[in-house]
Amino acid sequence: MTYNIDRLYEAVAAKGAVCVGLDTAPAYIPAGERRRAASDAAAVLAFNMAIVDATADVAACFKVQIAYYEALGLAGLEVYAKTLRYIRQKGVPVIADIKRGDIADTAARYAEAHFSGDFEADFVTLSPYMGIDSLEPWLSYGGKGGFVLMRTSNAGMRDFEYQQLNTAGVGGKRLYEAVGDRISAIAATAAGTYGYGAFGAVVGCTEPDEAAAIRRNYANLFFLIPGYGAQGGAASNAALLLRDGNGGVVNASRSILKAWITGEAPSDADNVFAAQAARQAVCEMRDALRNASASSPAGG
Amino acid sequence: MTYNIDRLYEAVAAKGAVCVGLDTAPAYIPAGERRRAASDAAAVLAFNMAIVDATADVAACFKVQIAYYEALGLAGLEVYAKTLRYIRQKGVPVIADIKRGDIADTAARYAEAHFSGDFEADFVTLSPYMGIDSLEPWLSYGGKGGFVLMRTSNAGMRDFEYQQLNTAGVGGKRLYEAVGDRISAIAATAAGTYGYGAFGAVVGCTEPDEAAAIRRNYANLFFLIPGYGAQGGAASNAALLLRDGNGGVVNASRSILKAWITGEAPSDADNVFAAQAARQAVCEMRDALRNASASSPAGG
Repeated sequence: MTYNIDRLYEAVAAKGAVCVGLDTAPAYIPAGERRRAASDAAAVLAFNMAIVDATADVAACFKVQIAYYEALGLAGLEVYAKTLRYIRQKGVPVIADIKRGDIADTAARYAEAHFSGDFEADFVTLSPYMGIDSLEPWLSYGGKGGFVLMRTSNAGMRDFEYQQLNTAGVGGKRLYEAVGDRISAIAATAAGTYGYGAFGAVVGCTEPDEAAAIRRNYANLFFLIPGYGAQGGAASNAALLLRDGNGGVVNASRSILKAWITGEAPSDADNVFAAQAARQAVCEMRDALRNASASSPAGG
Repeated sequence: MTYNIDRLYEAVAAKGAVCVGLDTAPAYIPAGERRRAASDAAAVLAFNMAIVDATADVAACFKVQIAYYEALGLAGLEVYAKTLRYIRQKGVPVIADIKRGDIADTAARYAEAHFSGDFEADFVTLSPYMGIDSLEPWLSYGGKGGFVLMRTSNAGMRDFEYQQLNTAGVGGKRLYEAVGDRISAIAATAAGTYGYGAFGAVVGCTEPDEAAAIRRNYANLFFLIPGYGAQGGAASNAALLLRDGNGGVVNASRSILKAWITGEAPSDADNVFAAQAARQAVCEMRDALRNASASSPAGG
């Protein structure tokens, strides 16, 4: 069995830890391109293809947030499918950011939908609220992988994820740690070549102490790390969730897709212009993560 | 502001508390109909329309589980959209069972997707793991409503939902109760005419004591109650989550859609045959819930 997580690890080793988030809102697209396109959905597809072409050799992977495509209706989901296919044809891993979580019968249908057919991706994101039996149908699906929500970086994280539990079995741990313990046990049953399980966790950029503890306590979890850039996380914090610069990918969306929108953007900016700015933003982020990893006290 | 929750309450008062779950797998469709259809997706749409036609006057609402449609790819999602539209054109409330939960920016895109356009529904289901800020973009969306996962009836429910918390603010409560407290506070800010907020909760059929306590403690929450029929819940347990036979809808999917598959099903059974069996199953379930509510000690 070749796990996609091994391909992802190798991609990070070769190209750095940046995950390009294709949360593409029509408003991020150069006005001329959008005007010339047959529809907003068509404009999104052309923009995505330009971004992928310009960044595939400097990004570890792509993450496609399905919400931005659903918001454009059926035409948007056709563009979602085409974007996934375009990335996979280039041999670059792609994460479907869908955060599904439902009873086993339903989860089996979702796994069929997102691990085969029109919407096939290499990884998905999942939500753990309903428990482990809601995750099981996704496991051992021909090397596919996933990232389970564990400790996010939004303010609402404190409402439930951060609550401390009072159960003998997991005494004193926070909910997100109880989730992490269970994902880590699952990862141990599907371990890839480099020490990381096929299923990892979503862990947002956070305070240095907590990030270092999370990296230490969940050694076999590969992390999908959001919260960089537009959401305010810094390279030094993100690097603490890595180990020797690997063991996770750091996602940025708006700071890459909207890099072309600066005070100096020409009024006739096109997708090529936007894609070159995106490429530069990815390279700068990749280098910032490498530098932070090299100087991290935890050897991040 | 007219809340959809008021329409749903009135539908239950008039027609009983059954929610027909259109979790339509192609395997549930009569073989002849499936063979004659141009595709599995087309067969699902024709079957759904027959079920809706036969049950709309005896069901309070419909719930469409998007996973079954995603599993059929783009063609499946077109059928999903058409099924929602068909139900809404009949003036019957429809719940999109999508269990979304993501950061606010993303949640706003999802709300646009599922409360307008191709996939417009009257209600959605939501997942609370990431916290209240992940729910907020869905609120106050022109009277639309939702049901937030609170206490489900699958075995994995014990993994996280049922864990006891150890926080001063919510001392000793289980996670699902902490979630319920927050949803109840949200419901109080968007209260409909009949004492139930626009946003309610998903609460599965459970033990009688716990069901009665949940109904008592969350008086302003309208419940979406899965776990009836194929999942094993009984009318008497479901009725404990109601109040005078209202305040919730009880979902059944397979026991209605597959009611036509009995030892005596003719080999040439068609959608009309399946739909009549579905209608009878809905009527029997409606009556069982009414009888259980009438004899419930808690006045369920």
